Amino acid sequence: MVLTDAPRVVALAGGVGGAKLVFGLAQVLPPDRLTVVGNVADDFALYGLHISPDLDTVMYTLAGVANPETGWGLAGDSVQMLEMLARYGEDTWFRLGDRDVATHLLRTHWLAAGLSLTEVTARLAGALGVRQRLLPVTDDPLATMVDTEERGALAFQDYFVRWRWQPTVRDVQFRGAEEARITGAVGEALATAEVIVICPSNPVLSVAPILAAGGMREALRGRRGVCVAVSPFIGGQAVKGPAAKLMPELGLDISPAGVARYYQGLVDGLVVDSADAGQAADMAVPALVTATLMKTDADKARLAREVLGWAGSLQR
Amino acid sequence: MVLTDAPRVVALAGGVGGAKLVFGLAQVLPPDRLTVVGNVADDFALYGLHISPDLDTVMYTLAGVANPETGWGLAGDSVQMLEMLARYGEDTWFRLGDRDVATHLLRTHWLAAGLSLTEVTARLAGALGVRQRLLPVTDDPLATMVDTEERGALAFQDYFVRWRWQPTVRDVQFRGAEEARITGAVGEALATAEVIVICPSNPVLSVAPILAAGGMREALRGRRGVCVAVSPFIGGQAVKGPAAKLMPELGLDISPAGVARYYQGLVDGLVVDSADAGQAADMAVPALVTATLMKTDADKARLAREVLGWAGSLQR
Repeated sequence: MVLTDAPRVVALAGGVGGAKLVFGLAQVLPPDRLTVVGNVADDFALYGLHISPDLDTVMYTLAGVANPETGWGLAGDSVQMLEMLARYGEDTWFRLGDRDVATHLLRTHWLAAGLSLTEVTARLAGALGVRQRLLPVTDDPLATMVDTEERGALAFQDYFVRWRWQPTVRDVQFRGAEEARITGAVGEALATAEVIVICPSNPVLSVAPILAAGGMREALRGRRGVCVAVSPFIGGQAVKGPAAKLMPELGLDISPAGVARYYQGLVDGLVVDSADAGQAADMAVPALVTATLMKTDADKARLAREVLGWAGSLQR
Repeated sequence: MVLTDAPRVVALAGGVGGAKLVFGLAQVLPPDRLTVVGNVADDFALYGLHISPDLDTVMYTLAGVANPETGWGLAGDSVQMLEMLARYGEDTWFRLGDRDVATHLLRTHWLAAGLSLTEVTARLAGALGVRQRLLPVTDDPLATMVDTEERGALAFQDYFVRWRWQPTVRDVQFRGAEEARITGAVGEALATAEVIVICPSNPVLSVAPILAAGGMREALRGRRGVCVAVSPFIGGQAVKGPAAKLMPELGLDISPAGVARYYQGLVDGLVVDSADAGQAADMAVPALVTATLMKTDADKARLAREVLGWAGSLQR
């Protein structure tokens, strides 16, 4: 099942959608061949806890402890603490599972003790048995800000969780992007990667903040390996989340050609779903047309294997 | 059931034993007649959380949400977070219930935002429906340090929880006592109290750190009201905890006369258990001899009523 002569792969991943392909890649690659670069611009503080939703989703997924129903959070988690917070009169708009709190508490405690987010993430993931490398794109502050018609400027989690991505988006910005730099580990992973996979995460809310960290676009442009993206859209719809609503609100085209344009200059090919086969010819880069919906573990592994096989055939 | 013409009462209370009598007092006094001054020298930080075990025990008891089996913690609480911490390789020697974590998280968050421990405690207790006043003796840092034969100097929770009070105690000190001052609210409550009750808490580990806060002994000596203590010993044994082991290790006598001596100059009378009736005559202050074991809510109310009635008959 695991590829022999496996390439060194770096996957850029946001939350749930990205984590699915990461799980597939982890099934077909030896652990030391897979590095995941995660989004940190969704990170936020709640009651002083440093929460990293996207890193946690990937970490829990790789550790095999993710909640299979939601894709995020921990399997079998409870919400006793949250219910007690509600009893104290708090507005519990963000779901904090009891087990999940342990992750946030340790992360916060270790960050306060002077460890970097990269070091903290390695410790947490290692303790959960994750053998692949999981790297935050940057150790610097970086925060997605969503400017909306109805509610003005919103911090990401306010837009995404509190208002359930219903407000109309006028603009998305990444606060701190000018100062934030990719870590040395990320730079090195990209420089030595033979295949870079942009996972089917929300291009604007999950991938763009990874690309926004200083040095990221330069590192991708200077890559020796092949870079391919997997479109998160199937027949003009996102499998999950606001991508298919938000991108048109920003004037962005979510057709295969539109996604290829969004990643222009960064990718050598785009994987699009069979449902969009008719539009794949319009793209500026080569397309792999295949089933991209990942329901089962077998779907994830199959897509990962196809993506890697196809990427190996592409020219830089 | 509630006393008419009830006196203004201040109770000095540590953890579980003290909270039992506090619960009794709360049953027989109108809420605005009872102020509890709590010990904060057991407070400690765990993963950055500010934990106040004694204040919480009293607060949960007054709110009717305490775990009836242990006397501390919350009824029906779970330990999912703790189990996850263990999975991360942490030594989970201190039991942190999931619901309990909400209390610590809010306290820590509000303290970091600049509220005093007095304000935080009032907010938490108020939200849980506690109508009596619960006051930390001081808002300043104060920490019980236990010097032991076997393990040297231990922070209180290390002695009490981690080592289950098995080491032999050579000395007990209250770090910060020279700078710590009782709060204005505590000073005012003591100045206007008609009855001050030192609850049956560990004299050295729970009451002494309350007395150690700067201004406390002066406030008690300058009191207009009567002050009585309830001995925590029954037939030479403590109902719970290390008092009957620790005090002899420090050369202190746990007979009624010994306890009266320990509180000399501060109390106008001592309540001793019927089991110790034979020794009550040796005391330097008047004694009330009665059943002091509090198993049921009725026991607690009965003892509270007796203590208050007797205190009313004593001279300053």
